[in-house]
Amino acid sequence: MTARPFNFSAGPATLPEPVLLQVAAEMLDWQGSGMGVMEMSHRGREFTSIAEAAERDLRELLMVPDHFRILFMQGGGLAENAIVPMNLGRGGKVDVVITGSWSKKSALEARRYADVQIAADGEASRYTALPSPTDWQLRKDAAYVHVCTNETIDGVEFHTLPDLKALGCDAPLVIDFSSQQLSRPVDWSKVGLAFGGAQKNIGPAGLTLVFVRDDLLGQALSICPSAFDFKTVAEAQSMYNTPPTFAIYVAGLVFQWLKRFEYAGKTGVAAIEQRNIDKAALLYGALDASKLFSNRVALNCRSRMNVPFYLRDESLNDAFLTGAKAHGLLQLKGHKSVGGMRASIYNAMPLEGVQALVNYLQEFEASHG
Amino acid sequence: MTARPFNFSAGPATLPEPVLLQVAAEMLDWQGSGMGVMEMSHRGREFTSIAEAAERDLRELLMVPDHFRILFMQGGGLAENAIVPMNLGRGGKVDVVITGSWSKKSALEARRYADVQIAADGEASRYTALPSPTDWQLRKDAAYVHVCTNETIDGVEFHTLPDLKALGCDAPLVIDFSSQQLSRPVDWSKVGLAFGGAQKNIGPAGLTLVFVRDDLLGQALSICPSAFDFKTVAEAQSMYNTPPTFAIYVAGLVFQWLKRFEYAGKTGVAAIEQRNIDKAALLYGALDASKLFSNRVALNCRSRMNVPFYLRDESLNDAFLTGAKAHGLLQLKGHKSVGGMRASIYNAMPLEGVQALVNYLQEFEASHG
Repeated sequence: MTARPFNFSAGPATLPEPVLLQVAAEMLDWQGSGMGVMEMSHRGREFTSIAEAAERDLRELLMVPDHFRILFMQGGGLAENAIVPMNLGRGGKVDVVITGSWSKKSALEARRYADVQIAADGEASRYTALPSPTDWQLRKDAAYVHVCTNETIDGVEFHTLPDLKALGCDAPLVIDFSSQQLSRPVDWSKVGLAFGGAQKNIGPAGLTLVFVRDDLLGQALSICPSAFDFKTVAEAQSMYNTPPTFAIYVAGLVFQWLKRFEYAGKTGVAAIEQRNIDKAALLYGALDASKLFSNRVALNCRSRMNVPFYLRDESLNDAFLTGAKAHGLLQLKGHKSVGGMRASIYNAMPLEGVQALVNYLQEFEASHG
Repeated sequence: MTARPFNFSAGPATLPEPVLLQVAAEMLDWQGSGMGVMEMSHRGREFTSIAEAAERDLRELLMVPDHFRILFMQGGGLAENAIVPMNLGRGGKVDVVITGSWSKKSALEARRYADVQIAADGEASRYTALPSPTDWQLRKDAAYVHVCTNETIDGVEFHTLPDLKALGCDAPLVIDFSSQQLSRPVDWSKVGLAFGGAQKNIGPAGLTLVFVRDDLLGQALSICPSAFDFKTVAEAQSMYNTPPTFAIYVAGLVFQWLKRFEYAGKTGVAAIEQRNIDKAALLYGALDASKLFSNRVALNCRSRMNVPFYLRDESLNDAFLTGAKAHGLLQLKGHKSVGGMRASIYNAMPLEGVQALVNYLQEFEASHG
């Protein structure tokens, strides 16, 4: 294996090299079946075994309780912004906490299907801080409360899930954890439904994961398309329509990779969480020590996954990106809506990648500071 | 390249070997970019060039006029059964022609969003014949008329698109051509919208293609999710939500393969159509000449893509399938709703594959007939 550049894309994002090598090796013939995975009937014995293993491994990795169903769906987070209120909103009240670009989009889309109230809005901080749960305005009779646990663009993350019951609210918590999922454990006792696109920590774009508590199935509005009715999807083991088979296969290999993953004497999700903590500490430490670069997010909610940062002299942006590419550091440009830079350091990004970025930050500052 | 078995899956289906080889070769590094295609931002220069080339090649292959938009979407044909009436139905009247399992599902789902009338139903023939268009009951003020041009399960195909104008109907024709698309040219003058899942002739499951006439955009119901509003998708060049990037890349390679494809002195779609005609003639000829095997579909609407057939002695079914596998002929079992056998002989199935199947049919009949 020759060394590849380090790819900091926010998603679709870098994948573990052993996974890509296996995918390439099995392209024409999956385990002696005479077929590539892309060519298999989704109802055949071969693909069924792939899908079942993927779900089993994911359930094990995230310790998903038996009373949650795992659904493999399509359309990404933006489609779920409609699919969730169609399934859980019951045409009633939905409370949304706005913490950045993604939750804002979720609130907007939910208005098509429900009476949406903004429970809190981090706008005053320009989304560099999270509104404290004790200040959220929650309605007793809300059908659910929506929170984005990691804002990919703004780089703020909930490091503890809000406890709605402790806040006096019995509504189920819905979390959009697209760019957080599988980077750390989940406290399922606080969650009613979790969803996320796969293209951050899990696999190719085009696969959406939905984890839904059993008792929330079967409430879909009559306008909900059958292919997006959680109950229909659950009853068909995610095979009501043809699922994105190849993406599920790649995700399954990522799950196997993660089960084998070891770091700091730990394995699996515990190991990857520790490495994510260490990677984030390394990068934020370098940014905070710099006079040229800065991250603006409050200390208690800095994302471990997406680290937006700015050059104090923005006229150096192009030189920074050109130099980065020359150093084998790819896709560091920030989202167009906020500008600056962004380093997404998902599960598959090794510590060495973050160290290489930190080295480059220091080298660039020394020559341009 | 060692010889692979011949894979007759109805979808996901066999893909051209040169495409799979290229996908494998580029898995870790697409054209010197240092990234695999799965790992690229959908908004980056690299993937944008892949998506643009795919659309351009598809437009060229199918001679899609400029006043049609090509959309890369998700959810497959079953999701489109809801998405199309949400976009084109205007809450009004929709006429559906029932020719088999797929159009039946389309009619059922459209009822959620429109006043659906069955314009004709092939049930009397047990879906082995197509109701003649001159007998269709079409409403003058229908928002659109839905037809499935190839029934994957029943094996009936429209070899000429109905001309609604000639039938006195001004409504746009919507065709579900999932298992027909790219197997032959399309007469776009008769079409308002065409849709299909990619997993037959085009690429991996999880990608849906929609071809929609410009004037039909912008009519979506307010309950239509933004991610499935054709106008929103069209205006964002299919990047409103993260598209299934890897599936688009594979589809693009299939388009390039087809542009290079030569047969009987022809190239591209004309060549593949000729080979599809020859493959179908070879297989139907063998079935018709047999005393053991039979295809029940009327001569004028036999599908070139999906050939269901039955053993007159069904107690031999298991022996037939076991022997087929031993001969390197895979996935021949018929759909569970109709039983029997089915050979799907999409674009990527070579003539040699059909010949091998015919040889096996004759050999099996000689020893069991």
